[in-house]
Amino acid sequence: MTNYFRSNINAMASYVPGEQPKRGTQIIKLNSNENPYPPSPAALAVLQNIDGEWLRRYPQPFGEDFRQAASKVLGVPNDWIIVGNGSDELLNLVIRACTEPGRKVVYPVPTYVLYQTLAGMQAADVVEIPYNEDYSLPLKELIAVNGAVTFIASPNSPSGHVVPIEDLRELATQLSGVLVIDEAYVDFAEEDALALVQEYENAIAIRTLSKGYSLAGLRLGFGVANPKLLNGLFKVKDSYNIDAIACAVGAAAIADQEYKNTCVAKIKASRTQLAKDLRQLGFRVWDSQTNFLLAQPPKGNAEYLYQKLKERLILVRYFQQPGLDDKLRITVGTDEQNQVLVKALSQFLDGGAG
Amino acid sequence: MTNYFRSNINAMASYVPGEQPKRGTQIIKLNSNENPYPPSPAALAVLQNIDGEWLRRYPQPFGEDFRQAASKVLGVPNDWIIVGNGSDELLNLVIRACTEPGRKVVYPVPTYVLYQTLAGMQAADVVEIPYNEDYSLPLKELIAVNGAVTFIASPNSPSGHVVPIEDLRELATQLSGVLVIDEAYVDFAEEDALALVQEYENAIAIRTLSKGYSLAGLRLGFGVANPKLLNGLFKVKDSYNIDAIACAVGAAAIADQEYKNTCVAKIKASRTQLAKDLRQLGFRVWDSQTNFLLAQPPKGNAEYLYQKLKERLILVRYFQQPGLDDKLRITVGTDEQNQVLVKALSQFLDGGAG
Repeated sequence: MTNYFRSNINAMASYVPGEQPKRGTQIIKLNSNENPYPPSPAALAVLQNIDGEWLRRYPQPFGEDFRQAASKVLGVPNDWIIVGNGSDELLNLVIRACTEPGRKVVYPVPTYVLYQTLAGMQAADVVEIPYNEDYSLPLKELIAVNGAVTFIASPNSPSGHVVPIEDLRELATQLSGVLVIDEAYVDFAEEDALALVQEYENAIAIRTLSKGYSLAGLRLGFGVANPKLLNGLFKVKDSYNIDAIACAVGAAAIADQEYKNTCVAKIKASRTQLAKDLRQLGFRVWDSQTNFLLAQPPKGNAEYLYQKLKERLILVRYFQQPGLDDKLRITVGTDEQNQVLVKALSQFLDGGAG
Repeated sequence: MTNYFRSNINAMASYVPGEQPKRGTQIIKLNSNENPYPPSPAALAVLQNIDGEWLRRYPQPFGEDFRQAASKVLGVPNDWIIVGNGSDELLNLVIRACTEPGRKVVYPVPTYVLYQTLAGMQAADVVEIPYNEDYSLPLKELIAVNGAVTFIASPNSPSGHVVPIEDLRELATQLSGVLVIDEAYVDFAEEDALALVQEYENAIAIRTLSKGYSLAGLRLGFGVANPKLLNGLFKVKDSYNIDAIACAVGAAAIADQEYKNTCVAKIKASRTQLAKDLRQLGFRVWDSQTNFLLAQPPKGNAEYLYQKLKERLILVRYFQQPGLDDKLRITVGTDEQNQVLVKALSQFLDGGAG
C-alpha cells in the first residue's frame, strides 16, 4: 500500500481534527476561538435570498462580489484581493506556489501548527525559530534564514501578541522571499499590516471571516497583496474554490462593519474582564489582541484543569507540547460563559499533579 | 519577482476561467454542463433552515452528515467516502498525495484539461496517450506506463463516452499506482464503477453534485475508495474543507434520489432529441452518456458557429486544440433551449471558413 503515496506523505501523521461537539450539545465551547455572537443580520438576510438558480450555476471564479465589498471596506483595489475557502486554503496556496524540497519555510514558534503541516506536504525544508521569552520576534535569526516563505501570525496564536509593524517592515525589506502575515485575529487587534502589504510586493496579509465575522462554518478567507504576487497564487487555486453562497453572504458580512465592530467591542470588554478574573485566581495571563487568552495556572496543572473543565462540559484548548503544556488557551466567550468558566476553575485550581 | 515561485509555477500559464456570464444576463448557457433544472426542493428547504449558530461554529471536519446520507444511497460505509470542495479538490488531493517530480501522471486524451494543470503544479511527469479514433481506450499503452496516478474520466469529456468496466478492471488489476475514475457525469450514464472501487484498493471513484444534482454553485464533490487509500488523501486535505451549508444541503440533495432521477430522465430524453436534430442538420454527433454532446458541424466550421451563437446569446464550448477545433461541446439544456440552439445553428450552418 505504502508506495501509492509520496514518501513525505507516508511519513506524515494523519490529521486529528479539533474537538467539534455536535450541534445542540450543551457545552461551553472555548477551544477553537469561534465568536460567541451570531453573524451579521444583513449576512443572514442574504442567505435567505439564495435560490436554486444561484446554486445550479457555477460560482464566480474569483469571488468578484466579495472582492468588491472587501475592496470598499479595506480601501484596496479588487485585484489586490484573493478569496479562499477559509484562510487555511490561502496559506496552502502560498505553500504550493512557493515551496518544494530545498526551499525553506521559516516561522517563529510557538505559532499556528498548520504551517508545519503544510510545509510537510510539500516536503519543504522547515526552519522553526523559538520566540524570545517575552514573545519579541527573533528578527535577526528569521532574516538570516531568508526563507522562500516566512510565516508571521500577527496577532499570534496561542500567545495573543501582535508583532510590531516595524519588525514586519524589517522582514519585508530584508527577505527576498514571500512574507505571509497571517492576520486571522486582526479584527481584535489595535494595528494591522494593510499599509505594509501595499508597500512591499513580497508581503501578503491573510485574513478570515471565521473570527471577527462569526462565519467559521462558511469557510471564507482572503488575502491582500500586490497583483504580481497574487498572480502566482491564482495559478494554483482550484477554478471555483469559493461557493456562490459564501461569496454572497461573506460580501454582506464584510460590508456590515458596524455590526462586526459592535461584536468585537463586546469581546474586547469581556477579554479585559476575563483576564482580570483569571489573574485574581493567580493565573499568569498574557496580554492579548485576539479573542482568546493564554493563561498559565498558578500550579501549572493545565492538563488537569483541561480535563476537569471538560467533565463540566467546558471545552478549552490544551497543547501537549514543550513550553505550552503548563498553559491553557481560552477563547473569550460571552460574559456569562466566562463567569461559568472562572467559577469552575476556582474549584479545580488546587487539584492534579501541579 | 520570478523567484518567489517554484520554477514550474512560473512556467505555467495563468488559469483562464470559463465564461460565466453574470446572473440575470439573458443568455442560453450551454457551455459548462450545468443542469438546466433547479436543485431538489428538499435541499433548498434545508438551506432555508440554516441559522447563525450553524455558521458561527466550525463545520464537521469530514462532512459527516453528507457522508451518512451518501452512504445510505450508495451502499458503502461512511469511512469509504471522502468529501471535497467540488470534485476538483478531490482530484487535487490525489495529485498532491501521490505525485511529485519523477512520478508519472497518465491519462488518455482528449479529456478533462484539469489533469494536466494539476500535474503541472506538482511538477509531476505527464504522459498523455491519445484515445483511439473510436474512443476505445489505449489500454496496453496506459498499462505500460504504469503511472503513480492514472486518470480515466468515465463518462469522458468532451467525447461523452463511457469506458467499459472490463477496461477499468484491467487497469485496476495491472496498475500498481492509483486509478482515478472521474465520474463527474456518471448520473447520466448507464453504468458506474462503484462495485469496482470496492474490490480494488488502488481505485477511487470521484463524483460531484454539480451536474446530476444541479449544485455547481455549492461546490461539493466526493470520492469513494478503500479507507486505506482515503487515509493518504485525508492527510493533505484542509482541516475544514467543506462548509457547513454545503454539507447540510448536499446531504439533503443526495438523499432525494427521486428528484434527481426525474431531472436526469428529462435530460436524457432531451439529449436523444437534440442528437437527432443535430444529425438532421448534418452534424456528426457522438453517442453520449453525459449531459452534453460532442458535435462536428458538416463543414467543420466550429469556431465560426461558436462565435455566431455567442452573438445570438447562446454559449456553447469550443476547444481550440487539435482534434477538437472542428467540433463543439454542447450542454443539453431544456427542450426549449435546445430548439432555440438548433434553429440558430440551421441559420449559420453554411457560413465561415468551413
